[in-house]
Amino acid sequence: MDSSALKTALAYHDAWTGKDFERAMTYIADDIVCDAPAGRIEGAAAYRAFMGPFVEILVHAEMIAAYGDDETALLMYDTETIPVKRAPGAECVTVKNGKITYSRFLFDRAPFDAARRAAT
Amino acid sequence: MDSSALKTALAYHDAWTGKDFERAMTYIADDIVCDAPAGRIEGAAAYRAFMGPFVEILVHAEMIAAYGDDETALLMYDTETIPVKRAPGAECVTVKNGKITYSRFLFDRAPFDAARRAAT
Repeated sequence: MDSSALKTALAYHDAWTGKDFERAMTYIADDIVCDAPAGRIEGAAAYRAFMGPFVEILVHAEMIAAYGDDETALLMYDTETIPVKRAPGAECVTVKNGKITYSRFLFDRAPFDAARRAAT
Repeated sequence: MDSSALKTALAYHDAWTGKDFERAMTYIADDIVCDAPAGRIEGAAAYRAFMGPFVEILVHAEMIAAYGDDETALLMYDTETIPVKRAPGAECVTVKNGKITYSRFLFDRAPFDAARRAAT
């Protein structure tokens, strides 16, 4: 197992931004805890339900910055999605034995809320 | 002048989270460009008008992670504010000659929008 959190975080990022969500999920620990804007997500199944629909609407992603060490990695990236043209995100992840066990996930929900309201 | 972007970003962060906004502004370049959730902010005066009111409502801040090198720094932190109890933010800054010249600023506007609606 690779102990570098940054390497794991980048491999995870490359997988989901490359629309290979199943490969992305191989980097997610079964007992992942993710603190996202809407609240805490617990477990890989719940994380899949959170992240899968986002990957579906993803058009393009570009890394802004990525740093880390053996335990923690911090990434910021821009994404283009179908409903929202500029939707940057940031993630601070804890990695153990090559799997992401904790993620602090940050993005602006406002334009997604606005797009949802406009669609209904 | 210190060339370390991380050192400047941390000094800036310490100043504004310590409510010393005038000291914080000494780390902001006159011609700063900041890409924030609501759009681009250009120049120190506009940045002051953006950031000053946030510092006014700040109760407490805690660093989640901070990384960087000589040119760029990436920070994620949690804040407690008067209207929103948990308002994390992330900033990716470019530093030149000890001043922040560019900032990519990320936070979730949704709870602030909700608090504003609730107040009116």
